[in-house]
Amino acid sequence: MVNSCQSCDRCAGGFENLCPGIVWTYNSVDLDGTVTYGGYSSNVVVHERFVVRFPDAMPLDQGAPLLCAGITVYSPMRRHGLDAPGKHVGVAGLGGLGHVAVKLARAFGARVTVVSSSPAKRREALDRLGADAFVLSSDADEMKAAAGTMDGIINTVSANIPMTPLLGLLKPNGKMVLVGMPEKPLEIPPFDLILENKALVGSSIGGMRETEEMKELAARHGVAADVEVIGADYVNEAMERLARADVRYRFVIDIGNTLRDNAE
Amino acid sequence: MVNSCQSCDRCAGGFENLCPGIVWTYNSVDLDGTVTYGGYSSNVVVHERFVVRFPDAMPLDQGAPLLCAGITVYSPMRRHGLDAPGKHVGVAGLGGLGHVAVKLARAFGARVTVVSSSPAKRREALDRLGADAFVLSSDADEMKAAAGTMDGIINTVSANIPMTPLLGLLKPNGKMVLVGMPEKPLEIPPFDLILENKALVGSSIGGMRETEEMKELAARHGVAADVEVIGADYVNEAMERLARADVRYRFVIDIGNTLRDNAE
Repeated sequence: MVNSCQSCDRCAGGFENLCPGIVWTYNSVDLDGTVTYGGYSSNVVVHERFVVRFPDAMPLDQGAPLLCAGITVYSPMRRHGLDAPGKHVGVAGLGGLGHVAVKLARAFGARVTVVSSSPAKRREALDRLGADAFVLSSDADEMKAAAGTMDGIINTVSANIPMTPLLGLLKPNGKMVLVGMPEKPLEIPPFDLILENKALVGSSIGGMRETEEMKELAARHGVAADVEVIGADYVNEAMERLARADVRYRFVIDIGNTLRDNAE
Repeated sequence: MVNSCQSCDRCAGGFENLCPGIVWTYNSVDLDGTVTYGGYSSNVVVHERFVVRFPDAMPLDQGAPLLCAGITVYSPMRRHGLDAPGKHVGVAGLGGLGHVAVKLARAFGARVTVVSSSPAKRREALDRLGADAFVLSSDADEMKAAAGTMDGIINTVSANIPMTPLLGLLKPNGKMVLVGMPEKPLEIPPFDLILENKALVGSSIGGMRETEEMKELAARHGVAADVEVIGADYVNEAMERLARADVRYRFVIDIGNTLRDNAE
């Protein structure tokens, strides 16, 4: 987001992300009537409330995705008490959001288990990202062994996958946080939530105060996104690769050095 | 429930209702291997932990349903912070659970709005049960006027109704508590939860400590269930009337005076 009304209860409470007058970074109409183009702009004017100063130690390219992927997974982990040693956090799906969720959950000191349908992600999760465990969702034995062990799951999967097996991984009172956005409605058997007081909770980015907190935590623990930096002229090819999930894990466009208007 | 392992973390924490060794009141196998028959029994032996002493002022017949309907709606209102003046609680569906939810929410001092598809329930909710407001779910104007106003909704509806309009009644961070059990999976568009951090939470009865608290609150505020007391020989007819939702709001069987074994 790049603006909000800055006067409602939600803004006052630090939740600009819930403001009815929120202005999204792109494809939104700002308070002055201009349309926002986000990172594709030559230049952007933003109220200082929505500007984040990066610590020297945080590279701009690897830090940039934290302002979406990072805060999106940080905020629910904080709000739902998954941000402490002794907590067991599941991360379902290992992509742009998931790989940052693993890193931030570790920064909180939590135990982290990656749940994925892709066997190829096992080594990646354990060796490269430092997850404590990996569960292959198609392996009934692994799923059974992990059942009832997680305080919360950050569900980054944006496909319509069955919810029952995932909800089964939660302890009583456990929470599954939706941050991925499947196209079709989720099918939730009521029994899966009712029997052990489980919850399905949504979450959308976070407020600016939380964003500052997330940035500080990330800087302190050397957490950043894994990125592939591209030039502006590579955007169309990058979109095609995104559709194939062929990126580890975020494209970052180097606008300053490659957008024609800026190069003049 | 009439028993639990009484030694696990959940039992120790007061949540016998979440104990993996829970023994349900009927159709369950108790620790000694006997099958439970609940209220249909001539006599029942229960560990004192699972026995609730009724205050003199609480009639046994009107108080009995509180041990299911009452605790089922009390526990989630407490756990999810809906138990205070200034909170706005929606009660979806006005039946056995719903009418007690209205009374207990009022006892907490919360503002209560009944949401129902039945116009006939309006006067009942407002005049007889003392709800603060009534919203007819099929009336688009009423639903729109109530949109975004509720801190939580106790959803007692056990039919598969569309969730989007109901979730729209919640404030940001609002919680819909499922206590009704529709047969088919609920269809939840992820956007309905994600955009404003809303939650769908399940809840199943409550622990014995909570049950004692609920009983005390109910006694203090004169809260009890509206019941129709019947004899044991009326059970089959009562079952047929239940299937037609023809009871206001709970049947209570007077076992002591009408079951043949007891009358001997």
